[in-house]
Parts: sequence; C-alpha cells; structure tokens
Amino acid sequence: MSATLVIIDMQKALDDPRYGTRGQHDAEANMARLLTHWRDLGNPVVHVRDNSLDPDSPYAPGKATHEFKPQLAPLQHEPIIDKQTNNAFIGTDLMQVLEEFGSSDLIVCGVHLHQCVESTVRMAGNLGFLVFLPEDCVICVDVLDRKGNRWTADQVHDLTLAILDGDYCKVVSSADLMGSAADGVIH
Amino acid sequence: MSATLVIIDMQKALDDPRYGTRGQHDAEANMARLLTHWRDLGNPVVHVRDNSLDPDSPYAPGKATHEFKPQLAPLQHEPIIDKQTNNAFIGTDLMQVLEEFGSSDLIVCGVHLHQCVESTVRMAGNLGFLVFLPEDCVICVDVLDRKGNRWTADQVHDLTLAILDGDYCKVVSSADLMGSAADGVIH
Repeated sequence: MSATLVIIDMQKALDDPRYGTRGQHDAEANMARLLTHWRDLGNPVVHVRDNSLDPDSPYAPGKATHEFKPQLAPLQHEPIIDKQTNNAFIGTDLMQVLEEFGSSDLIVCGVHLHQCVESTVRMAGNLGFLVFLPEDCVICVDVLDRKGNRWTADQVHDLTLAILDGDYCKVVSSADLMGSAADGVIH
Repeated sequence: MSATLVIIDMQKALDDPRYGTRGQHDAEANMARLLTHWRDLGNPVVHVRDNSLDPDSPYAPGKATHEFKPQLAPLQHEPIIDKQTNNAFIGTDLMQVLEEFGSSDLIVCGVHLHQCVESTVRMAGNLGFLVFLPEDCVICVDVLDRKGNRWTADQVHDLTLAILDGDYCKVVSSADLMGSAADGVIH
C-alpha cells in the first residue's frame, strides 16, 4: 500500500500580503519535486483547495487567486477536495477518497502549517492514519501574539513541528520520503 | 442558551514529571472558581477524561493518577467523556452530549493547551461551535524542538493562543466569562 500525498491550499491566494510575512521560500520547489516523484511512482495524490465563503477573501471561488499555483496544479485524474474550514476532513469527502485509495499512510504538506495543515494533520493522526509531514514542504507566516510580541515564520514553523512530531505525525524531509519510497512504500 | 463548560484531562496524571516543566500554576485555582460559578448559574458542565491505552501511562484507567484532581472532580450528574486520542470528539459521544444540552457555545479549558485542548478547540471551531478559551485556565509544558531549542511553557502558551484566537475560538479570561455570564449568556 502506498501513501497518499495530500497537498493543502497551494493556491495563488497564499501570496496575498494580508496573511503576513511568510517564510520557507523553497517550499513550492520542494513540493513540486516531491509531487513529480510521487506521480512517477504511480502513487495517489489529492489536492485540497480552500473555497472561502468570504467574498473578499483571495481564496473565494471565481477569483484568479483561487487558482492553484501552476507548479502544483492537479492533473485531470487527481481528486480535488474543496473545503470551507481549516480541516480538510470536515464537510468534505476526503475520508471517502482515502478509503477508495486504500491508503492508511498519508504525506501532508502545504499552507499554512500552523493553520490548515496542522488542523488536518491532528485530525488524521487521531483518526488512525500514519502521517508523514515533510518539514521543507510547509509554509508559515509570522504571528503577533496577544502581548504584542511578533513570532517569525521560522519560529512558528519550528515550534509547530515540535508539538506535532510523534503525537500526530512523523516529521521528515522530502528527501527522506523520496529516498525511502523508491519501492513505493515509506519505511 | 448557555455555554457548556468543557474541562479537559484535569487528572492527577498531569503532575507526572515525564510531561516536562509546566507553567500556568494558577490554572487549577482559576478553573475551580470558574467551575463553581458555572455550577451556581446552573449551566452545563462536561468533564473529559483521558483513558490511555498505554498501561505505563499515568493516564491509564485503574491507576490512582487517572483520577480527577479533587478541586475539579465531577458532580454525579455531570457527564464524563472518556477519550483515547487528543481530540475529545473522536471516538466519543461528546457531540451527542452537547446536542442534548442544546449548546452551540462552549468554554474549553484544561490540559495541555497545545495538545488535547488545542485539538479539541480546532475541531469544535471548525464544526461551527462558538468557542471561548480562557487563557488563565489552560496549562502548557516546555517543548524541545528538532533544532535543540527549548521553548518555555509560557512561550508555548502565548504562541498557541495567538494562533487559535479568532480562527477557532475567542481567547478570553475567566474573569471575562464570570463577569459577562451573570445572566447565563456570554456576550
């Protein structure tokens, strides 16, 4: 059985400055390489797309920014899961799609690590999936806390991964995944 | 309609040193005051309890440390939700209990903020509940990240609340809740 690669919210909208100062500038290139590798192995890929209910959001359907980034656009046979919350399992048929693929293992990547990726990874891990989270294929933005302290995207990245690792998923690198999956199975 | 107070994993086990160095030492006293106030108003209270499947865990049923802390112990009529993952909605009847109470508003508190409380708050917010998170009624421990940096419990507390506030819940203080809920409704 091969892991399903789940790519979350990699739409043009993520570059909108309203979301703050991003980090992890290599993430798109790393994800594109992992996606190509996964397709070459014939392993399943799922694209999650944010359909914001807020007409002013760059993620609102119909806007040009709602489109996937070109280097991570779905192929015609790859399922697109449209969601309206942070969690790709809520109000969607993601679970049904994964059951059809027969996948008990997932690789989850995308944007933002500390929002939609994290909500989905926590849920997936608690539902019993074995989840791999490639640390170089996720993006954070800076966060201003209630005391007025600003946390950089790198700080948010490091603490979020530390909290998730071991309890909800296994944090790895995309190189780890591409190296170990030459036979289509993650060890 | 009155908010349901959901208290997560306030068992003696949380004092086990294996979980790291905790912060927020006033949290138990703050929760006990909020609990008394909520009971006096006649508002619903739910206690979530961790039933670890790991026989070595202090949260394993049968151990003395599996018991609730005495100042936060349930009254006989208050439901206890036994869970085995971080998320109090998964594999439990929490949703059914909340539907019976007719609660669309929740107050969620307990331990650890960045683990079971956060997983439950993210899910509750995405399911459509209006969630209040009293910042002085949650407990974190320090976290060692993958680069070897140690984050204090206060740092984990501050960043976690900043990420959750507005997207999944409204971060408040227990004083806010006790002040505004004199009529049983949170404004």
